[in-house]
Amino acid sequence: MLPLENSPLARDGNILILAYDHGLEHGPSDFTDLPERMDPETVFEAATHDAVTSLAVQKGVAEGYYPSYEDDVSLLVKLNGTSNLWMGEPDSAVNCSVEYAAEIGADALGFTLYGGSNNEIAMAEEFRDAQEAARDHDLPMVMWSYPRGQGLKNDTSGDTIAYAAREALELGADVAKVKYPGSREAMEHTVQAAGGENGIEVVMSGGSKVSDEAFLNDVKAVMDAGGSGLAVGRNVWQRENPTQILDALGAVIHEGASVDAALSE
Amino acid sequence: MLPLENSPLARDGNILILAYDHGLEHGPSDFTDLPERMDPETVFEAATHDAVTSLAVQKGVAEGYYPSYEDDVSLLVKLNGTSNLWMGEPDSAVNCSVEYAAEIGADALGFTLYGGSNNEIAMAEEFRDAQEAARDHDLPMVMWSYPRGQGLKNDTSGDTIAYAAREALELGADVAKVKYPGSREAMEHTVQAAGGENGIEVVMSGGSKVSDEAFLNDVKAVMDAGGSGLAVGRNVWQRENPTQILDALGAVIHEGASVDAALSE
Amino acid sequence: MLPLENSPLARDGNILILAYDHGLEHGPSDFTDLPERMDPETVFEAATHDAVTSLAVQKGVAEGYYPSYEDDVSLLVKLNGTSNLWMGEPDSAVNCSVEYAAEIGADALGFTLYGGSNNEIAMAEEFRDAQEAARDHDLPMVMWSYPRGQGLKNDTSGDTIAYAAREALELGADVAKVKYPGSREAMEHTVQAAGGENGIEVVMSGGSKVSDEAFLNDVKAVMDAGGSGLAVGRNVWQRENPTQILDALGAVIHEGASVDAALSE
Amino acid sequence: MLPLENSPLARDGNILILAYDHGLEHGPSDFTDLPERMDPETVFEAATHDAVTSLAVQKGVAEGYYPSYEDDVSLLVKLNGTSNLWMGEPDSAVNCSVEYAAEIGADALGFTLYGGSNNEIAMAEEFRDAQEAARDHDLPMVMWSYPRGQGLKNDTSGDTIAYAAREALELGADVAKVKYPGSREAMEHTVQAAGGENGIEVVMSGGSKVSDEAFLNDVKAVMDAGGSGLAVGRNVWQRENPTQILDALGAVIHEGASVDAALSE
Amino acid sequence: MLPLENSPLARDGNILILAYDHGLEHGPSDFTDLPERMDPETVFEAATHDAVTSLAVQKGVAEGYYPSYEDDVSLLVKLNGTSNLWMGEPDSAVNCSVEYAAEIGADALGFTLYGGSNNEIAMAEEFRDAQEAARDHDLPMVMWSYPRGQGLKNDTSGDTIAYAAREALELGADVAKVKYPGSREAMEHTVQAAGGENGIEVVMSGGSKVSDEAFLNDVKAVMDAGGSGLAVGRNVWQRENPTQILDALGAVIHEGASVDAALSE
Repeated sequence: MLPLENSPLARDGNILILAYDHGLEHGPSDFTDLPERMDPETVFEAATHDAVTSLAVQKGVAEGYYPSYEDDVSLLVKLNGTSNLWMGEPDSAVNCSVEYAAEIGADALGFTLYGGSNNEIAMAEEFRDAQEAARDHDLPMVMWSYPRGQGLKNDTSGDTIAYAAREALELGADVAKVKYPGSREAMEHTVQAAGGENGIEVVMSGGSKVSDEAFLNDVKAVMDAGGSGLAVGRNVWQRENPTQILDALGAVIHEGASVDAALSE
Repeated sequence: MLPLENSPLARDGNILILAYDHGLEHGPSDFTDLPERMDPETVFEAATHDAVTSLAVQKGVAEGYYPSYEDDVSLLVKLNGTSNLWMGEPDSAVNCSVEYAAEIGADALGFTLYGGSNNEIAMAEEFRDAQEAARDHDLPMVMWSYPRGQGLKNDTSGDTIAYAAREALELGADVAKVKYPGSREAMEHTVQAAGGENGIEVVMSGGSKVSDEAFLNDVKAVMDAGGSGLAVGRNVWQRENPTQILDALGAVIHEGASVDAALSE
Repeated sequence: MLPLENSPLARDGNILILAYDHGLEHGPSDFTDLPERMDPETVFEAATHDAVTSLAVQKGVAEGYYPSYEDDVSLLVKLNGTSNLWMGEPDSAVNCSVEYAAEIGADALGFTLYGGSNNEIAMAEEFRDAQEAARDHDLPMVMWSYPRGQGLKNDTSGDTIAYAAREALELGADVAKVKYPGSREAMEHTVQAAGGENGIEVVMSGGSKVSDEAFLNDVKAVMDAGGSGLAVGRNVWQRENPTQILDALGAVIHEGASVDAALSE
Repeated sequence: MLPLENSPLARDGNILILAYDHGLEHGPSDFTDLPERMDPETVFEAATHDAVTSLAVQKGVAEGYYPSYEDDVSLLVKLNGTSNLWMGEPDSAVNCSVEYAAEIGADALGFTLYGGSNNEIAMAEEFRDAQEAARDHDLPMVMWSYPRGQGLKNDTSGDTIAYAAREALELGADVAKVKYPGSREAMEHTVQAAGGENGIEVVMSGGSKVSDEAFLNDVKAVMDAGGSGLAVGRNVWQRENPTQILDALGAVIHEGASVDAALSE
Repeated sequence: MLPLENSPLARDGNILILAYDHGLEHGPSDFTDLPERMDPETVFEAATHDAVTSLAVQKGVAEGYYPSYEDDVSLLVKLNGTSNLWMGEPDSAVNCSVEYAAEIGADALGFTLYGGSNNEIAMAEEFRDAQEAARDHDLPMVMWSYPRGQGLKNDTSGDTIAYAAREALELGADVAKVKYPGSREAMEHTVQAAGGENGIEVVMSGGSKVSDEAFLNDVKAVMDAGGSGLAVGRNVWQRENPTQILDALGAVIHEGASVDAALSE
């Protein structure tokens, strides 16, 4: 695991990844309410917000738009991903090599692992290759660790999410991105499973859009539980005003503000 | 994504790809009415028409006929493709390496992705290798983005076609070749899904032969919707006189003519 | 496609390949009537006949017997092939690399493609690798193009055989070896599908043993239809006197003799 | 096979591997009673005990924690492993390359083979690559040889365990880690199957937690049967006081003490 | 095919391979009657007998025991093999690379092909790689050619065994190891199928233990049929006194003695 304190992925150990790979993973339906957000420039703009420590996109979006933002945005290239036209067991195509990601300026890398899928073993081996290549380039690796598939009874239980965080630690990720397990206590268990104080970083995955307060409460619980922050997409760019929620998230994640204080800003 | 304005694939940002891989994809039945068009020379001749910005063929046809036309034709080598004798889930054999395509003079490359096929993930990974090798050779990459296969409910809906265009953007294609979604409005949605003004180019796929007017109306709608042009096969070389329809297509695509004006030329 | 006029595979553009891979493809049963023909020397001897332009064998037979015949026989190494003990979908193991074939003295290469098999796509990708490596060694490539497998309704129709010839052209073979489609007219269609006058060469596959006259009539029809000749095994070496039929084939293929004239020699 | 007498994996030919890959293989449930043991530091501390000759962990745990213990702990990197979310036939993802394991300081390597699984052949071939690379780095290779899967009638019979030890010998492991076959006599048979006196080392796998006396009795029987020691996880770090059981194990394994003597220490 | 007369695998063209890979292929049950034979040294000792021209073992046994016998034993490394815990279609893991076999001192190589198995094509392609690498190292290649699997009606018929020998010739083996087809006449057919006088060598596979006389009668019939000898395991090392049967085998194989003469020695 790499020391992330001064990495371009974090600031003082705190992480706010703005995720924008939904065009591939979910398709145009995620943009129904705000069609202008199909234009990647609108989200690169949002990512220039001071609270954002990294912007996660697929290769093609990085190639096309990052060159205009390389001074203002820290780039996380998501190495794998798949459209939801796919109807097979959960799986994710490796769309970008580590070498190419490094060439186009990646500051960090992302990789999905579907633990419990019939493709888990193949994905873990693809992760191995990516992780070891990432080490050669000194690029931190974030694992989207999402238990999912036929072998899985319940993918939102605290133990499953803690297991997901542990897999990220054992397999050599630097950051585990996991679903929120529902409570601060469960999140503490997850952080411990990732190795605790000297373990890897754990960030919560933003999920589908909810109210500002509900969302900030979860993020605050993650921080209080020893988590390092958040990777968020829809809860930012599906809002009319991304700046407002990013201000609040910055207060909670980077300044340790309470939810009330963050909301009243 | 590569700037295509001055690429050999486009002229002033407008694209008219003449596609001639039907001998592989459909077999001799596409030539029943005009058997002489089985001779690739007849279509290379057509491709010397000024309106055509690129000719798309498979490796073997490129090897055999391009050497006589290298001064007059811009060559797009289609990297994958499969006969319709194939009865499995939609898939496409990679018949040509990028290195070899470059060696035989390719100015651009083409690659089919069947989103929603059980082979989508394997095809996306083959695309990755081709796309990254294409970057090394500065060759623009056109994705034939055709959702198709068991995971697919409706492959001609506007949302599915917009998703196809988005996949091309996210995965790193320079041009998305998609089915016409049926209306200018739907085409606008597709162009937006591909990133909009600063996104990748979108061209309509010609499809099976229709009347001149019906065909030109669709092409005009594509141009009006912000599309970059057309990739067309049967609607050109299944006509007795390819020059006539190419004249009209050139007027609509390169000169912005109305369909009536184009037809009356 | 390579110019074959002066290639070791052809003479003045005409081709007579003596094929002897039946020991692998069919096993000992093909030698029941003439067991001495199991000894490869007997067929290498036959291949020294002036009418034969190439002898097609698998790697092991080439390794063992070609060294004694390298001055008198032009060697075609068949790169893939499988025993008929195999009961799966039509497929063919790649038994020899192009590099090794070149090392042991191959003048030409052969490769089977089963269009319509569930293995068609994998075989086409293996063919790609072989074809591109063959180009590096300037070795002409003959495709045994045999539609066969679960996706196939009728593998002897004229259209299917024409499609087979077309696949060979599109994928980059120099010669298509196809079944005889039953008539000169159907053969003309097949030759046209392979590109016509400037297309690739088409040779008829000899098939199981028939009478001299019936066999020569088919060969004559192939030549008259614009085909380049024949690849024949059993109709030569299952005969007591291979010289006699090779004399007649030489007359029809290389001298343009009529069947009557060829038979009366 | 490598001479292990002076290897960092053994001391005077005796082996006590402390295994700590349960976070990956079993998940958080193995830590229910002592949650603090989820923190790898607690087990690295235990591994500094003089009786321990090697600590077995997955790549990510090695990367994160070994740097602080490299003077006090001998590192065995387990190359493959899989979460128990996996519901397919027994299999194990190769999570770490030999080259990378060597780079991060491994003194020895571990690899699981599930004989009788439908994945046995694929795993054996992965083992081949790892074993031959290990030879290049002079790293001893421990095979976790666990017959398991659909082809298996009884995975705890003496003959199956002896077969597992034999597979380790035949395939080129230096140490076979097998289940305890239930008696000293069965263990002798297993040691003989691994080649006997000049064969490879055999160590017993610790299994789930049992009483001190029961556990030590088995270990003593292994030593008396000619085994080389033990690889143990839960029976050490699921105990409140790992030092106590490690003292006793050290007495039995390294000093040849009786179980009574070891317990009374 | 390599000239074997002076190869370390043969003596004056005659071959007696002592095979000892049963620990992997059959497991401990083959050693029930003589457990001491689980110790590879006992069989290496037997292999120092003058009649033995080669000892066939798996990689791990070669690594561990050959160094002490390299002056007295000619080593054949069996490259593939699988435990009988495997319940899938007949298949064989490639456990050793040719490069590594050469490094540890192999004088010859062995490879199993299960013709008719659903894995035949994959195995033939693995054989290709091994055979071509073997040529680089000038190592003779023995094919264990055993038709077996779902596609097979009768694996002991003379025609099937002749086919097996032919596959070995066609695919480039130097020696075919086949089951005894039941009679001298059938064996002659098999030898002819392997190319006859100038073809590859054919040796009989020893099979399970039978009486001295029955066994020697079969071996004599093989020699009289033009075969080159024998590969034998259980019929040697499952006997209390391997020297006695090796004396007799040496007389029949190397000196052309009758069975009676060989038995009375």
